[in-house]
Amino acid sequence: MKKQIDINCDLGEGFGIYHFSDDSAILQQVSSCNIACGFHAGDPSIISATIRTAIANGVKIGAHPSYPDLQGFGRRTMRLTDQQLYDSVLYQVSAIYAMSQSLGGKMTHVKLHGALYNDSSRDLHLAKTSFKAIRDLDPHLIVYGLPGSEHEEAANTIGIEFYPEAFADRKYTSNGLLADRKMPGSLIEDPDEVAAQAVSIVNGQAVETMDGGVIPVIAKTICVHGDHPDILRNLKAMADRFNREHIAII
Amino acid sequence: MKKQIDINCDLGEGFGIYHFSDDSAILQQVSSCNIACGFHAGDPSIISATIRTAIANGVKIGAHPSYPDLQGFGRRTMRLTDQQLYDSVLYQVSAIYAMSQSLGGKMTHVKLHGALYNDSSRDLHLAKTSFKAIRDLDPHLIVYGLPGSEHEEAANTIGIEFYPEAFADRKYTSNGLLADRKMPGSLIEDPDEVAAQAVSIVNGQAVETMDGGVIPVIAKTICVHGDHPDILRNLKAMADRFNREHIAII
Amino acid sequence: MKKQIDINCDLGEGFGIYHFSDDSAILQQVSSCNIACGFHAGDPSIISATIRTAIANGVKIGAHPSYPDLQGFGRRTMRLTDQQLYDSVLYQVSAIYAMSQSLGGKMTHVKLHGALYNDSSRDLHLAKTSFKAIRDLDPHLIVYGLPGSEHEEAANTIGIEFYPEAFADRKYTSNGLLADRKMPGSLIEDPDEVAAQAVSIVNGQAVETMDGGVIPVIAKTICVHGDHPDILRNLKAMADRFNREHIAII
Amino acid sequence: MKKQIDINCDLGEGFGIYHFSDDSAILQQVSSCNIACGFHAGDPSIISATIRTAIANGVKIGAHPSYPDLQGFGRRTMRLTDQQLYDSVLYQVSAIYAMSQSLGGKMTHVKLHGALYNDSSRDLHLAKTSFKAIRDLDPHLIVYGLPGSEHEEAANTIGIEFYPEAFADRKYTSNGLLADRKMPGSLIEDPDEVAAQAVSIVNGQAVETMDGGVIPVIAKTICVHGDHPDILRNLKAMADRFNREHIAII
Repeated sequence: MKKQIDINCDLGEGFGIYHFSDDSAILQQVSSCNIACGFHAGDPSIISATIRTAIANGVKIGAHPSYPDLQGFGRRTMRLTDQQLYDSVLYQVSAIYAMSQSLGGKMTHVKLHGALYNDSSRDLHLAKTSFKAIRDLDPHLIVYGLPGSEHEEAANTIGIEFYPEAFADRKYTSNGLLADRKMPGSLIEDPDEVAAQAVSIVNGQAVETMDGGVIPVIAKTICVHGDHPDILRNLKAMADRFNREHIAII
Repeated sequence: MKKQIDINCDLGEGFGIYHFSDDSAILQQVSSCNIACGFHAGDPSIISATIRTAIANGVKIGAHPSYPDLQGFGRRTMRLTDQQLYDSVLYQVSAIYAMSQSLGGKMTHVKLHGALYNDSSRDLHLAKTSFKAIRDLDPHLIVYGLPGSEHEEAANTIGIEFYPEAFADRKYTSNGLLADRKMPGSLIEDPDEVAAQAVSIVNGQAVETMDGGVIPVIAKTICVHGDHPDILRNLKAMADRFNREHIAII
Repeated sequence: MKKQIDINCDLGEGFGIYHFSDDSAILQQVSSCNIACGFHAGDPSIISATIRTAIANGVKIGAHPSYPDLQGFGRRTMRLTDQQLYDSVLYQVSAIYAMSQSLGGKMTHVKLHGALYNDSSRDLHLAKTSFKAIRDLDPHLIVYGLPGSEHEEAANTIGIEFYPEAFADRKYTSNGLLADRKMPGSLIEDPDEVAAQAVSIVNGQAVETMDGGVIPVIAKTICVHGDHPDILRNLKAMADRFNREHIAII
Repeated sequence: MKKQIDINCDLGEGFGIYHFSDDSAILQQVSSCNIACGFHAGDPSIISATIRTAIANGVKIGAHPSYPDLQGFGRRTMRLTDQQLYDSVLYQVSAIYAMSQSLGGKMTHVKLHGALYNDSSRDLHLAKTSFKAIRDLDPHLIVYGLPGSEHEEAANTIGIEFYPEAFADRKYTSNGLLADRKMPGSLIEDPDEVAAQAVSIVNGQAVETMDGGVIPVIAKTICVHGDHPDILRNLKAMADRFNREHIAII
């Protein structure tokens, strides 16, 4: 069987006249996108345009729900009640889900955004509350999340499929976490090195850590960041390398 | 065949801690509700609670989309582009549509809110743009609107079912429009008189106008206002009268 | 010297068409008000009307800044950066400050709202960051806050006048904190008892605690809650009792 | 007396993580800025940073109030009541006014934004309502607006100083209006030509119109657009040319 991997990117993260990333170009290179739902970014017209472009490029559509914090781009922790969190996630994924159907597509997955992603990776209760809303919408949806975190545990408990995600353009620490963005060397800058780490991830091989050791990274999807200055170059390097290694992006 | 009529009410129009009407009590008396979608009122938890209560009471669920104007409760005209209007309506009805499914119900209809309702009743292009979004979501949805207005024309053009709505607690003018709320006598205050006008509407009989004449009012649904101080008394009077006249509320 | 006390109430906490409390009636009974600034409640027209009515009644005007969370009424903890918090408080108090001047009044004080009030009462850094913004606007402003909490410490450190506030309609615990709203008996329901506790506070006498003991409560201002169902009755009882005891409400 | 002109630019028009223009660079070249107040763009931290940078560069600070429409960047007409418009403008200019004082500066002027600017240039009542709020805040404030429009009439009626503004990088029509942005040739692309038109404006000389004629343009301030791709080049060309012609930017 040919090797394969999914590449996902958070998209539709502009608002009104503001643009965040070159979504049209990125949608030609990735296999799935996570679309902002209007709570941290995105408005109806941006969501609609992103869904249309994803469909035109055969890219899998996902929702990217957030805490309700437009001013903070969903990057600030907020303490919601369980009911508020469940309802907020349900509202956001519902909007993208039925809009996708209306526009001729089908939503396949969900990935939590920003502070909600991070908080829920460490807090089983938050993760379960969020994932319940997703499962109640459609039990066939897939949740993308952090491998080995409470995301994985919550998905198993709730009974929803889980895709562990890895990062090709960032260094890991020896305990398998992402190195802090502010640490020198945490960002892999050479596109060839990015592509090499991506291939290691696909092959289930170990990747090099910040301190020079190696650790295995298990993933069904590789996340790329839409606002990375070199994203298109990195995607090109990955595509070329995958092509040579007979790895399908699906 | 037994006579029958639908009674609709705009609900879920609170926001956060704010309440607008006694939704639980009203949902025991009406047959369909139009739920605010978050753009003029409503937040995910209010929407979710309203859908649940509607399901529990066997009330038909509708969406009540608006211009994006929370501060103005959707009562201020805004000039959106066609694409912005289409996408805004699509986003709002999509959220209610898929949330209803998630919570075990089914959305059956849509009624535009406030300034969007009024503007589109006089502007065919606005009405068509809005109704296209509704039809693209689900061609079996029904649009509630103003009989004889551009709502009816747009629904026919777009190819979506139309329910003309009438008002039992308000006087009409001789040209078939609602008398202005500020005119003395425009509001019918006696619950028995409200019930009598409702029965005339159901029977296709003429109703008395402000100037003492009579006009026919054709309707498939009667709208009651959730914030009317006597709404529960009026609903009771209508229910009693309908019961005696063998009119089913469906 | 005649005894005196300030009575403060959070007002202007409606939004758009939503009302929260009977502000006009309350403004005839209190001596200072804390006006919502638009981040948890309040919009320009509500703020403007509240300032005008406060001026007409000779009530001292204060700002009531919050985390930016309209949907949650500012009752949800949010993690802002220091700069975001400073700027958010500065923006809010600035709006009320210059609006008060425009409308012929003068803003005299500030009281933090909801989750920001509570979080900062336990976190010196949050309190100092917020109070710096207030002092930078006008060093003559007074901060109302929780006696013995980080509010008091922060005000002393920053160099801004502090008014400790007490509550007349709530029971205290033996360690001087407010008894939880959900505990039976935590709310004092008899207006005469409310008035009696208010007099004890003014006189610097001990008040009875939940467990039957007594503790002293030191305060320069007594807070009443605008959404309390009996607020007008309680204010009347306090006014009558103060009148008999020769206590001026200033 | 040496000739002189003011150059103004709308700034602080980002939101949260979104940037709109290179404000720091622009603030080194202009003499006054109009700062978004949070209703169409801008948030407390962007406003605060823009005020600080303006002060550091000796640039005059103005407020740039808008209809309350963040999603539409204030570019969509909204029908507010007079009271709503007055209060909305008052709130916005008040926030910038007192923040400027807090941060060590002084607000000198106001320019309406987007749809509110355009609507009020054609509707005397809108212009007067908006300008009353500005005058009530501080009668020494200056309003920047469209010469010969209802802006000028309203400022005269209300009794507030008016600065007519002209555009150096856009062609005028023969009746003295700006040529529509979508017409070919309406945008002047050559920086030297922009500078030449600016000098003509300063000298009160006629500028060439779209149809090859000439008309006089009277202005006390020249507006440049922060999102123009060549703004820094145009500002440089104007500065060089003004230097040679002994025109002071003040």
